[in-house]
Amino acid sequence: MPSIDMEGVRTLGRELSNWGRWGDDDQRGTLNLITPDRVSAAAATVRRGVTFGLAVPADGTGPYSAPGSGRFNPIHTMTRYRGDDPRGELSDFRSSEDMVILGTHSSTHVDALSHLWYDDLLYNGYHHDTAVTAWGAERCSIQNLSAGVVSRGVLLDIPRRLGVDHLEPGTEIGPAGLDAAFDAAGLRPRPGDVLLLRTGTYPRHRRGADVGLARSPGLTWECARWIRDHEIAAVCADNFAVEVLGANAGGPMIPFHMLAIRDMGLLLGELFDFEALAEDCAADGVHECMFVASPLNIPGGVGSPLNPVAIK
Amino acid sequence: MPSIDMEGVRTLGRELSNWGRWGDDDQRGTLNLITPDRVSAAAATVRRGVTFGLAVPADGTGPYSAPGSGRFNPIHTMTRYRGDDPRGELSDFRSSEDMVILGTHSSTHVDALSHLWYDDLLYNGYHHDTAVTAWGAERCSIQNLSAGVVSRGVLLDIPRRLGVDHLEPGTEIGPAGLDAAFDAAGLRPRPGDVLLLRTGTYPRHRRGADVGLARSPGLTWECARWIRDHEIAAVCADNFAVEVLGANAGGPMIPFHMLAIRDMGLLLGELFDFEALAEDCAADGVHECMFVASPLNIPGGVGSPLNPVAIK
Amino acid sequence: MPSIDMEGVRTLGRELSNWGRWGDDDQRGTLNLITPDRVSAAAATVRRGVTFGLAVPADGTGPYSAPGSGRFNPIHTMTRYRGDDPRGELSDFRSSEDMVILGTHSSTHVDALSHLWYDDLLYNGYHHDTAVTAWGAERCSIQNLSAGVVSRGVLLDIPRRLGVDHLEPGTEIGPAGLDAAFDAAGLRPRPGDVLLLRTGTYPRHRRGADVGLARSPGLTWECARWIRDHEIAAVCADNFAVEVLGANAGGPMIPFHMLAIRDMGLLLGELFDFEALAEDCAADGVHECMFVASPLNIPGGVGSPLNPVAIK
Amino acid sequence: MPSIDMEGVRTLGRELSNWGRWGDDDQRGTLNLITPDRVSAAAATVRRGVTFGLAVPADGTGPYSAPGSGRFNPIHTMTRYRGDDPRGELSDFRSSEDMVILGTHSSTHVDALSHLWYDDLLYNGYHHDTAVTAWGAERCSIQNLSAGVVSRGVLLDIPRRLGVDHLEPGTEIGPAGLDAAFDAAGLRPRPGDVLLLRTGTYPRHRRGADVGLARSPGLTWECARWIRDHEIAAVCADNFAVEVLGANAGGPMIPFHMLAIRDMGLLLGELFDFEALAEDCAADGVHECMFVASPLNIPGGVGSPLNPVAIK
Repeated sequence: MPSIDMEGVRTLGRELSNWGRWGDDDQRGTLNLITPDRVSAAAATVRRGVTFGLAVPADGTGPYSAPGSGRFNPIHTMTRYRGDDPRGELSDFRSSEDMVILGTHSSTHVDALSHLWYDDLLYNGYHHDTAVTAWGAERCSIQNLSAGVVSRGVLLDIPRRLGVDHLEPGTEIGPAGLDAAFDAAGLRPRPGDVLLLRTGTYPRHRRGADVGLARSPGLTWECARWIRDHEIAAVCADNFAVEVLGANAGGPMIPFHMLAIRDMGLLLGELFDFEALAEDCAADGVHECMFVASPLNIPGGVGSPLNPVAIK
Repeated sequence: MPSIDMEGVRTLGRELSNWGRWGDDDQRGTLNLITPDRVSAAAATVRRGVTFGLAVPADGTGPYSAPGSGRFNPIHTMTRYRGDDPRGELSDFRSSEDMVILGTHSSTHVDALSHLWYDDLLYNGYHHDTAVTAWGAERCSIQNLSAGVVSRGVLLDIPRRLGVDHLEPGTEIGPAGLDAAFDAAGLRPRPGDVLLLRTGTYPRHRRGADVGLARSPGLTWECARWIRDHEIAAVCADNFAVEVLGANAGGPMIPFHMLAIRDMGLLLGELFDFEALAEDCAADGVHECMFVASPLNIPGGVGSPLNPVAIK
Repeated sequence: MPSIDMEGVRTLGRELSNWGRWGDDDQRGTLNLITPDRVSAAAATVRRGVTFGLAVPADGTGPYSAPGSGRFNPIHTMTRYRGDDPRGELSDFRSSEDMVILGTHSSTHVDALSHLWYDDLLYNGYHHDTAVTAWGAERCSIQNLSAGVVSRGVLLDIPRRLGVDHLEPGTEIGPAGLDAAFDAAGLRPRPGDVLLLRTGTYPRHRRGADVGLARSPGLTWECARWIRDHEIAAVCADNFAVEVLGANAGGPMIPFHMLAIRDMGLLLGELFDFEALAEDCAADGVHECMFVASPLNIPGGVGSPLNPVAIK
Repeated sequence: MPSIDMEGVRTLGRELSNWGRWGDDDQRGTLNLITPDRVSAAAATVRRGVTFGLAVPADGTGPYSAPGSGRFNPIHTMTRYRGDDPRGELSDFRSSEDMVILGTHSSTHVDALSHLWYDDLLYNGYHHDTAVTAWGAERCSIQNLSAGVVSRGVLLDIPRRLGVDHLEPGTEIGPAGLDAAFDAAGLRPRPGDVLLLRTGTYPRHRRGADVGLARSPGLTWECARWIRDHEIAAVCADNFAVEVLGANAGGPMIPFHMLAIRDMGLLLGELFDFEALAEDCAADGVHECMFVASPLNIPGGVGSPLNPVAIK
């Protein structure tokens, strides 16, 4: 892909902007594209009654064990497991308890629109001084998704179309790649669609492969316009940042994120696992599903771990 | 309700037992009742394309602030909110990060079948010494729900049928109450159904009311047979323990739990919020929905916070 | 005490300032007053060989259970307690494990000099934009105390001198009160001293009393000059904020903090428990001790839980 | 060293046992050896007034990043760093806040006597069923150290005596090595002493060296008798488990731990950093110090992070 510099991001961001499109107070961005008829149409795609969880296990094999990354892998600890009753508080039953400590972006997750911005302004023009504080996101928090994200999901199985197991580090998926993936799926993009972008990256990381995190394959920044033109509501991927990493020499590190989250108000999901779903889609030839993603209801949250479900 | 003693629980437990019904290795219990045709039928209930999140906010107003309860309220903290870049690691964008610390049973949640048992044996006869250890649940963990729980949900709005805002502490809902609630909803129970039991309790707690936690209204232990007979897959409630508390003088504290989780392998969900869904059901007269609950994918977890969604 | 407004704080702050006194790069403030001879002199106060821990138990009875306070009480959970060995990793021994989740200011603690400031500048003129970031305190972190704080401690048992069990909410301790407490102790202040200010407040809170947190008794802002004049190195107290709360109508909420931490670089400790030490001092008439406080070695920390020790 | 099997541990354990020595209710073990005169004598060793913190930084470079170890490295996060005041709760000052999540054995720490045992019984004969439960250690918790551990510390700088920078993996230190180290230090062991055992291991791990964790150099099990004979109160080391690892082929993995903690009631500390102290001792030829270790006051804790201080 051609490089894009900061000024290029600003110019393209203005062109693709959804600021004000759904009102000056809007905090939901492209979720507004998922109208009730889109929800109903998604439900109508269910035929066989099979479901697929799209989350990787939230455990210590995540990508954030390195010191200094500022993130850490999920921690799960049992706090009671034998129901011992030394203080006589229980009676006849025994029970177990546990807890989790989770960075909201450290396992399968979606980003709130308050997660990323530039030039001091978030999506829809909210200033970061008052929108994202120590008390949490006052604007564009994950609670804007608290009724769930329900729409048609379309699996774009890029490596399978190319006849490979997974995409190599640095592989760029541009607008033409998205068109080709839809063609291969026998589908046309529809407003409100959720793209489920399979690269094969993160499940391989979990199996111990060195997947070249810093050069993760993914979308080019040019896909932002394609996504805007096709009125896509969300993109979820099985890589680290949806977009290709390490490919924009001389410009911002993650230009697609900047355009997508801040200018377009696009929902992004990362660290997904599409392996089982992809097998199923390859087997029955149906690449659309009812997609249901329901983040935790975290006041002020700027992201959330979750386990999205694909229903076919 | 009549009291039931420990021996009574054992006898009734044997009668209602689902042990072995789905194989000696089964760890999913009544989720087996949700066959693919039940999933498809659930999707077919979607008409208007509206969605309702059923989780309360995971915040510090939960029920577990008292010292010594062994649980604690959800903790959410921002770990970055201004995107400051003192070390030059970022470039042109700014971002925010946060984390959550969650007891898996301290906000809206579902119980894994490894959460509760008696007489040293869990559901399907697994011995607690090897099934629930410091390393997590080796059997019946929450990962058995990792493909999501998708079925028909039926809102049983008990207080509204009775013409009250909420049920008083100690109010018992027995089998006849369940029948009456289905009648009022104009529906018949079907195998695989998820009961959404509204009492009005927990949302009132969150609004600051003293709801009498120790005498929370809910199901009587007699409902266990009703639920077994009607092949119900799950019961989710907006109270603390699904069942009525403080009502079984002289016997086990929570006999319904013991029968439901351990003998029947029934999925239970607690601390739900049905207020908005109930308003909608009262308005359109439709009390069934597509219910999608997707716990976090926690290896060895004995429960999970989540945000279930009702789709109508 | 007379009120002080923001402009008064600024003026007095300049007068009492220790900025530059120990070099432009100094991050230790009044700890510089604890010279090696002060350490040796502190050791020389040890006569009977008795020790007192000054920390309250780090448990759920702390002061921060209320939602929205932005702090939370200490959490301690066992993560292994029976040494079960389901996976064959252990051999002949059994062991237990646990973990703690601690706000660094939520139980007995000391403040790093990066904990509080005004007008955008920290102690010694460091600008908050670069000194205190999402990655931690780059200046004035708790690591500046990582060799331990060892000096003479002087117990100022204010209520006992007044013949009462504890000070009532709102009680102000001014410079004359400090003089009187030293007189009652039969001691003279020396450079490098650590004041151990007993009010009786926090231990009562832990015993269930309503101690009027918002009007906690303590030092007046006028004590800042007294402390500067006498070259005191640190003040540790058994209340919530060292200083009296709710007493500076119309001015800043905690003017002593602003002067002490930001302008003077004074070490403050809070939520201490002096009950046992005070009994001992009353019994033997010796109110000085060797004081050893050793915060956790937390890179970038802005405070630390700890268990200071008084040795007599 | 010769191997020791489980029966050998039991036999030697009975011989070295301190059970009942300080009463049937004792929970402090060898801390009883630190009598007031030992505390005073420790204070009398202070000459130059210099202090050394012995804790490594509690950060993400600890030894527990590997998935499945059941431990995790310390987590420190800022929760407020700019004092933003969007809700008007603050007035004129700005402040910062942070928190830590710490496994009690995952950085520099001491073990409570409830941390390890065998044959179902802890130190002094407490049964593990009632002594160590989900609610914490009911016996032998870390709170038994809450008045601090203050005694003479003796640095045993094993590698320096041998003319090397650090001990190689697998290096065994036996009773003769302890005698030689005392001789080299020009000191004789005294009752109540705290041994500060330098191997050079953990500081090297933190500098990125592969130190062969599974074969960490350290004490042989034969040192247990030496320690018993010399009435040592505690052993703290800069390796992973005080004792040599991987050296007892065919027998228990950590026989010294079993004898020391369970039979003798000996205080152990691990993951210390003696580098700066060792430089100082080499320079002035004085290898004794006043040692002050003060664990956090954690009710029911089975260990504690801390920052011990050596004062010379």
